[in-house]
Amino acid sequence: MNTKLKKVIESMHQKKMDCMIVLKPENIRYLTGFRPSSSSILILKDNPILLASKIDREYASGSSMVNFDVYKKFDDVKKFLEAKVGIEKSMMVETYKKLSESFEVETTDIVEISRSVKSNWEVENIKKALQIAEKSLTELEFSGTEVELAAKLEYNMRINGSERASFETIMASGARTSLPHGTPTPHEIESPVLIDWGAVYNNYSSDTTRTIIETEKQEEIFNIVLDAQKTAIKSIKPGVKSCEIDAAARDVITEYGYGDSFIHSTGHGVGLEIHESPSLSKNDEGKLEKEMVVTVEPGIYLEGEFGVRIEDMVLIKNRAIVLNKIKTKI
Amino acid sequence: MNTKLKKVIESMHQKKMDCMIVLKPENIRYLTGFRPSSSSILILKDNPILLASKIDREYASGSSMVNFDVYKKFDDVKKFLEAKVGIEKSMMVETYKKLSESFEVETTDIVEISRSVKSNWEVENIKKALQIAEKSLTELEFSGTEVELAAKLEYNMRINGSERASFETIMASGARTSLPHGTPTPHEIESPVLIDWGAVYNNYSSDTTRTIIETEKQEEIFNIVLDAQKTAIKSIKPGVKSCEIDAAARDVITEYGYGDSFIHSTGHGVGLEIHESPSLSKNDEGKLEKEMVVTVEPGIYLEGEFGVRIEDMVLIKNRAIVLNKIKTKI
Repeated sequence: MNTKLKKVIESMHQKKMDCMIVLKPENIRYLTGFRPSSSSILILKDNPILLASKIDREYASGSSMVNFDVYKKFDDVKKFLEAKVGIEKSMMVETYKKLSESFEVETTDIVEISRSVKSNWEVENIKKALQIAEKSLTELEFSGTEVELAAKLEYNMRINGSERASFETIMASGARTSLPHGTPTPHEIESPVLIDWGAVYNNYSSDTTRTIIETEKQEEIFNIVLDAQKTAIKSIKPGVKSCEIDAAARDVITEYGYGDSFIHSTGHGVGLEIHESPSLSKNDEGKLEKEMVVTVEPGIYLEGEFGVRIEDMVLIKNRAIVLNKIKTKI
Repeated sequence: MNTKLKKVIESMHQKKMDCMIVLKPENIRYLTGFRPSSSSILILKDNPILLASKIDREYASGSSMVNFDVYKKFDDVKKFLEAKVGIEKSMMVETYKKLSESFEVETTDIVEISRSVKSNWEVENIKKALQIAEKSLTELEFSGTEVELAAKLEYNMRINGSERASFETIMASGARTSLPHGTPTPHEIESPVLIDWGAVYNNYSSDTTRTIIETEKQEEIFNIVLDAQKTAIKSIKPGVKSCEIDAAARDVITEYGYGDSFIHSTGHGVGLEIHESPSLSKNDEGKLEKEMVVTVEPGIYLEGEFGVRIEDMVLIKNRAIVLNKIKTKI
C-alpha cells in the first residue's frame, strides 16, 4: 500500500471511522494513481477497494494501485461499508441522504488535508507544469486579438507537454483587465495585458499571472502590487496562519489607499486541483506547513481604467521558495 | 422577469416551496444570463436575488437579469430565506447541513428539468457551437501525433469562435481507440482514429464523435455501430422513454454479438452542460419531449484491437432531426 493511502487510512481510524467513501476524482487520483473519466467510488478501509465505471475498466486496470471492480449500482457499495462511514464535505446531498438511511455518516477533509502537503514527486510535477506554462508564454508574440493570443498560448502548452490548460486562460487587455476573471474577446490587444494561465503535467497544475504594463500610472499600480506580493512572500513561514499572509499583502495595498480595489484573496494551494487547501484568505485560520505549494497573487482593479495582478507559485520550506523562473516584469 | 425564471418559480410554488437556493453555475447562467466565475448564490422567490462574489461584481452588473448584491458570508443568505427551502440535488452536504439547522430543506430538480427542453435561442446557440466544431475538424490535416492533432483542433475551435473546448478532446488512434475516453498521446496517429470533440458558444456546448476507419474488420464494426445509431435515432419520438432509445441501439449491437463491448449508455442531453438531462440509458424511465437536444452515440470497444463510436446531436421534434452536417464516414 502506498504511503499516502496508508496515512489517510490511519487518520480515518483515529477519527473512529470504520471506512470512508471517496468520490472526488482528484482524491481518487491522489490515493490510487487512477484518474477516473466517469464516476468512480473509492472505499477506504484496511483493504481498500475501487469501484470504477465500466467505461474506465481498461484504464483503471492499468493505473490503479488499489484493487478494483466494476461499479454497477449503488447497492453494491453498501456491502463494503461498516457502521460509521466517513465522507467528503463535497458529497452531493442526494448521495448523502441515501447513505444516511443505513449508516452513521460523518464528513471529513482528511484527504484534502493530506493533499495540501506535497511529496517531492508531486512538487516535481508542479514544477514541470510551471516550466511548460512559462516556456509557452515566452514563445508567444504579443500581437493580434485576445482570443488569438489565448488560443496560441493554449496550443503552445499542449505542444510543450501540457495535458490541457489548468483553467480557462485569462487574456484581458486595456480596460478589461479590471475584470479579475476577464475571458478573451475578439479585440486587438492594447495596454495593459493581463495573462493568467497554467499547464497540467501528470494531473498537477501550475498557475501564474503576469501583467504587461506601459504607462506611468500602470507602473505606479504595478509597483504597489509587487510590493504587496513581495511582502506577502516574505511573511510565509511554517507555522504562520494563512490569514496572516493575506493580511500582509492587503496591508500594503491599503496603505497606498487601494484596499477596496483588492477584491479577492491573496492565494491558494495548487496541486491536483487548481484551487485547493490552504486558502490564503481573511478567514483561513489554518497554519502553513512545510512542503505546501501556494500561489501569492495580490491585485488592484480600477473599474473603467485597468487592473494589475502579479501571481507566483511558492513552495514552503523554512521560507517561501518562488518556483517561477519567468521575470515579473515582461 | 424572463419566461424561464417565471416558469421555474411557478414550479417551485407548485411544490409548496417558499424559496429555492440555486448554486450550480449552469443553473445560475440559465436563469439570470450571468455565468459566475466564482461561487454565487441565486435565491429564487417572487423577487429573486443574486448574491455574487466581489470578484464578479463588474461582470454580474453587466449581464444579470436578476438584481444582485455582493455575497459576503453565509449568514447574509439566511435573511432572504423562508420556512421551506428548495435546493439542488448537487448541493454539497456541508452546505446542506448548515441550512438544515434553521430551515426545512428539500431537494428538487426543477431547474434541470426546465433546462432539458430548449428554447429556439438555446437551439441556435447549440447549432452555432456544432458548426464551429465541425468547421474546425474539416480544417484539420490528419498527420502528426495525437497530441498535435488535438492541440490543432482546439486551436481551430478557438479561432473559429468557440469559448473553449466543451470537454477534454478525445483523439485516440490505433489500439487506444478501445478506450472510450482515450486522452491524446505523443504517438503518431495510426488507423483507426477516434475523435470526440466539441465547441462552446454563448456557454452552450456541442458534442460529436467520428471514427476514421481503414481496414475491412474496422468497416465491419463501423457498419454495426452505424446501424445501431440509425435505429436509435429512428426510435426517438416525443413520449418515448429514454431507456427505450438505449435498448434500440443496444439490441442491434447485441444481435451482432457485440453486446458486451458496448460499455456505456447511448446518449445524453447537451446544453449549458456537456452532460445533462435526459440520459439515454438503461435506467432512465423519463419520457422524451419536443425541443430536447440529445446525443446518440453507440460504440463497440474491442480491447487490444480497436474501438468505434459514432455520435451525432439530434433535436427532438415529431421525430429526431440530426443537427450534424459533417459526414458520418470521413
